[in-house]
Amino acid sequence: MLFNKIVIIGIGLIGSSLARVIKREKFAGHLTACDNNPVYLKQALELGIVDSVEENPAKAVENADLVVLATPVGVYGNLTAQIVPFLKRGAIITDVGSVKKFAMEEIEKNVPADSGIIVVPGHPVAGTEKSGPEAGFDTLFDGRWCILTPSKKSTPEAVELVRQMWLGAKMRIDTMTPEHHDKVMAAVSHLPHLIAFSIVGTVADLEGYEQQEIIKYSASGFRDFTRIAGSDPTMWRDILLNNKETILELIQRFVEDLIALQRNIRWDEGDKLFELFSRTRKIRKEVIEARQDQPEIEKKILAEINKLAK
Amino acid sequence: MLFNKIVIIGIGLIGSSLARVIKREKFAGHLTACDNNPVYLKQALELGIVDSVEENPAKAVENADLVVLATPVGVYGNLTAQIVPFLKRGAIITDVGSVKKFAMEEIEKNVPADSGIIVVPGHPVAGTEKSGPEAGFDTLFDGRWCILTPSKKSTPEAVELVRQMWLGAKMRIDTMTPEHHDKVMAAVSHLPHLIAFSIVGTVADLEGYEQQEIIKYSASGFRDFTRIAGSDPTMWRDILLNNKETILELIQRFVEDLIALQRNIRWDEGDKLFELFSRTRKIRKEVIEARQDQPEIEKKILAEINKLAK
Repeated sequence: MLFNKIVIIGIGLIGSSLARVIKREKFAGHLTACDNNPVYLKQALELGIVDSVEENPAKAVENADLVVLATPVGVYGNLTAQIVPFLKRGAIITDVGSVKKFAMEEIEKNVPADSGIIVVPGHPVAGTEKSGPEAGFDTLFDGRWCILTPSKKSTPEAVELVRQMWLGAKMRIDTMTPEHHDKVMAAVSHLPHLIAFSIVGTVADLEGYEQQEIIKYSASGFRDFTRIAGSDPTMWRDILLNNKETILELIQRFVEDLIALQRNIRWDEGDKLFELFSRTRKIRKEVIEARQDQPEIEKKILAEINKLAK
Repeated sequence: MLFNKIVIIGIGLIGSSLARVIKREKFAGHLTACDNNPVYLKQALELGIVDSVEENPAKAVENADLVVLATPVGVYGNLTAQIVPFLKRGAIITDVGSVKKFAMEEIEKNVPADSGIIVVPGHPVAGTEKSGPEAGFDTLFDGRWCILTPSKKSTPEAVELVRQMWLGAKMRIDTMTPEHHDKVMAAVSHLPHLIAFSIVGTVADLEGYEQQEIIKYSASGFRDFTRIAGSDPTMWRDILLNNKETILELIQRFVEDLIALQRNIRWDEGDKLFELFSRTRKIRKEVIEARQDQPEIEKKILAEINKLAK
């Protein structure tokens, strides 16, 4: 047992997956889910992944040793203002937000220096495009990275406890500044998601195309973008608005490169296309070698999919 | 048996997968692979997926009833000029190219009206980012769509034979004009691939980032783009250069939409972001409902992946 009482606020995909890990690893004497969606709370109870549920955050955190914020980052400010007065000294607040500078500021502005409350911002880099407690599963985090961005309101002991929790979820742990986290995530996560949302919107809006035909042939490339573009709208609105400067700069870079590519196509510069596509193929290989994807079993998986699809 | 002798020219991912289907379904009395890469020919023989191999296309097609072009479309012109003089009357040329107007023109310009040679252009809409005969598998086409674009050089009997072959590969068959094919594929396949190549190039080139860190955290979105951007460089160069007008127009549309989105972020227009992201999420649902993706077993697959990754 790592904590006597853990409260997860926001029992969606990440929150409910973490709840399953906490149960499996017996990390909490008591585990409470808090959510403003009563349906999610009912589901969490029925799934047996928490011990109790409570809609009111102030009541939920009573006597808690660890509070995990797993809501969209846009509500962290309001939420922490509500719970901090009811937290006991020594309680730890951690979170799972995908932007860390904003998240940390929103939490810490509500944590008075003399409150004895400890803050350990974190980001388990894992997920699917699904939402809700029924979409969670306890192996979601396996082998993925969890980034902790300790602040002046962290203590080494609290960081270690949060670290132990994510190690129990089978994550690999990294520590960095919130600024560095946000810069890296802008490139590997925020820009790709934004582009996916954008292209799915563009293709869906094309006049002179039948929507049904777009869907029918989506397996030829479009489908892979719809998966990413199916991610939670509220969460992604909050991420993009709260890591704005870096993202705007990256969009600019991307558009520059795309326009250059457009020009290559217009002027039949096949050698330049070939050069770029060869480079991107090499990057794909590096991703595979870094075990961030597992293609060796893709065939097996595809065969399985086809069997089940029949 | 559908044909006495079938020749597949280009024994890569698609060609070798089709060879496996032809063997499984016993569609050919004799199946020959032709490729300018002797390593591929050796592999095809060793895999036992063809009866014989031949590097010289003119020799390979001798006495063939069906020739399947499965090379990049950029070589169709040269290739058909080489083989047509050695084809018997009544022989059928079909192909698997991802652009159909250019492909048809390149083939048919080399088929004289009085040659008795029949052309049935086709496009099995299936694939992975892999290349080569070892990457193929006989279930690659299962449940996917095959588009035939019959021309003046097709006959109903030949179209029916080619149709039977793809039905044996468990594909669903559609028939349309090459122009319509190219328009639809530009939206669902060519633009998405181009964007994936472009963004992987952009992210890889960002200065002030460590390449290793990009790879390390790629599971958060970037990874999905690298998969598409790992596709065959020659094939994609040829596709993009030979469906140019439609693709250039779609890039323009995409950039317009992306710039609008950039502006939404700059001016904190969260409601507009939310509206777009909600729409794209709905499209994802439609793709799933159309059975172009099988997410219901994703959890099972992920658990399997994690088991094997250990």
